[in-house]
Amino acid sequence: MGQREPQSGTHSYPSLAKPYLVFVGDVTDPLDAKTATGFVHWRRDWCAGQLRLSADAVDVGLPEMSVVEARERGIATLLVGVSPLGGGLSPRWVSTMVEALEAGMDIVSGLHQRFSAQPEIAQATAASTARVHELRHPAGPFPLGTPRRRTGKRCLTVGSDCCVGKMFTALSLDRALTARGVASRFCATGQTGMMIAENGLCVDGIASDFISGSLELIAPDAPEDCWQIVEGQGSLFHPSFAGLTLGIVHGAQPDTMVFCHIAGETAIVDFPTVALPPIEECLQRYVEAARLINPAARFVGVSANTSKLAGAERERYLGDLEARLGLPCADPVATSVAPIVDALLQVREAAQAPDPVPISG
Amino acid sequence: MGQREPQSGTHSYPSLAKPYLVFVGDVTDPLDAKTATGFVHWRRDWCAGQLRLSADAVDVGLPEMSVVEARERGIATLLVGVSPLGGGLSPRWVSTMVEALEAGMDIVSGLHQRFSAQPEIAQATAASTARVHELRHPAGPFPLGTPRRRTGKRCLTVGSDCCVGKMFTALSLDRALTARGVASRFCATGQTGMMIAENGLCVDGIASDFISGSLELIAPDAPEDCWQIVEGQGSLFHPSFAGLTLGIVHGAQPDTMVFCHIAGETAIVDFPTVALPPIEECLQRYVEAARLINPAARFVGVSANTSKLAGAERERYLGDLEARLGLPCADPVATSVAPIVDALLQVREAAQAPDPVPISG
Repeated sequence: MGQREPQSGTHSYPSLAKPYLVFVGDVTDPLDAKTATGFVHWRRDWCAGQLRLSADAVDVGLPEMSVVEARERGIATLLVGVSPLGGGLSPRWVSTMVEALEAGMDIVSGLHQRFSAQPEIAQATAASTARVHELRHPAGPFPLGTPRRRTGKRCLTVGSDCCVGKMFTALSLDRALTARGVASRFCATGQTGMMIAENGLCVDGIASDFISGSLELIAPDAPEDCWQIVEGQGSLFHPSFAGLTLGIVHGAQPDTMVFCHIAGETAIVDFPTVALPPIEECLQRYVEAARLINPAARFVGVSANTSKLAGAERERYLGDLEARLGLPCADPVATSVAPIVDALLQVREAAQAPDPVPISG
Repeated sequence: MGQREPQSGTHSYPSLAKPYLVFVGDVTDPLDAKTATGFVHWRRDWCAGQLRLSADAVDVGLPEMSVVEARERGIATLLVGVSPLGGGLSPRWVSTMVEALEAGMDIVSGLHQRFSAQPEIAQATAASTARVHELRHPAGPFPLGTPRRRTGKRCLTVGSDCCVGKMFTALSLDRALTARGVASRFCATGQTGMMIAENGLCVDGIASDFISGSLELIAPDAPEDCWQIVEGQGSLFHPSFAGLTLGIVHGAQPDTMVFCHIAGETAIVDFPTVALPPIEECLQRYVEAARLINPAARFVGVSANTSKLAGAERERYLGDLEARLGLPCADPVATSVAPIVDALLQVREAAQAPDPVPISG
């Protein structure tokens, strides 16, 4: 009903038995296995093995394991580690899902395509005590977003494109803040982040009326000294996902933002004809968007993926970017997010909104 | 699957027997009855009567009629004409829905809340040959949006806020173009527009990954001389819906846009603390957004709701705005959209994209 009030309880992460068998299927493009890769990076101790359907599938560095072997070891959960563009369920993966369900294993999936709409899987689910947890299909109801400023502090990672390290950067910031004794909480907005943090919602699976509203559940009111580090999605410059991105910027109400970017990229990877604006303009567009809700929103750093650059080149790139933007620029893998955390901790409480600029109606 | 290809056939509008009994329920705020009001305005000849649950409910000007009376006249379809913010189904409406289903009437609804999730309605549906058509829950699958420029010409109505006449303006433009012998097609993106045009999709009910992609189904490739007039949704300046709005701007690929506004409004009606930017900045932000996909996108006019202004004031308001913006400004109810249609027809084929501006990676 015009849900302006968050409904608690219905959005809790499912209870799953650990460790997991990680399903990689037959995907050969590392981007299609980024759920598995990310999960293994942050939760290696929750992983028992990987299930690959072909020798050339992406190797995420776990012991090879079949459903039968997993069951022999008492492993009770299959984690679907594939996340192709569009979130489809390949017909080639169905028999493994059926096998796992028949063996009594729970499945956790972040695919858009509903397992319950696949006849063989639906039949196997009905016949099994095991359950399929579909993170991409959160139950709702969801509130409509409002401009009411929630308590606590928020940092949002945003980016020039998809797959530029928004989740990785958010998790790195959360870890660094916690290590410094600052109250911090990673807030997941996508399936991989949810699997890692055991909280959050897949915003891209929620009806588009409720994008900003869903963030009121993901990053709710919190103690004033607590930083909630919200994982952004997509990019304002991506033709497929910019709407999703903007709704998250509004709903997250960030006090601070960190811009994520792959060094040297000049266009949207999915669509090479779509050029990225200059990085200054990218930042400006995000600030413009965020200030609809929080007039004090600002950037506190750039998180650059410099994996294509050698040591000296990396140093020069980060140094040049810092000088251009006047912001700390770091690579969370190759260097450290510490300079960004320093800048973030210098941000005072959000200023009050300035007087509204009236439209000359 | 990464559905990049539109799937035809699954998105057709349901076949419904006319005329309809229009359900207004007990809503007293005209905004909550805007589906009924809009439908009656554009499709009076498809309406047999109105069903109101209280004497102070909004009167949309049709003969009062009960379910029993409607059935006696052979009316076979109940159109749910209420659309409260958030799209909830009030418990007070349930008994009427059950009565209609028991009497064998089909129901067409644009509410977010699923009829099938309401136990009494679900039971009545199961026991009836009648069907509930839920426009807010389109079946999918949907394609992901792409920057591929589709053939034909497109005009998108956008706005400063919700409920500022985007659907009304689009329907008016479509009617005026048709009257001039120009090939034109109204493209619905919301429930009321769908009921009127018997096409389209409720974009706000589609998973937020697919906002721009859904427009590839709503306003597909068309003959080069055909104008598709796409109804916009929400506003880039509305905290609840801006993401939805931006995705539609990208997916619609407009060659031309018309800005809709209520004369004198200076803030978002739902949230009076959220001030609107000056109208020039509103236009600029929409152009900036649209040019990600179509570098030739431009405004061809402003459609103003001047119902609060007296004759001379109206004339002065529209004249001043025209002078300020250098665009035709008209009220589709009080004056005529003809000057906007003139400007639209002067637009040549979209120019080629300029050279991309590289990000200084």
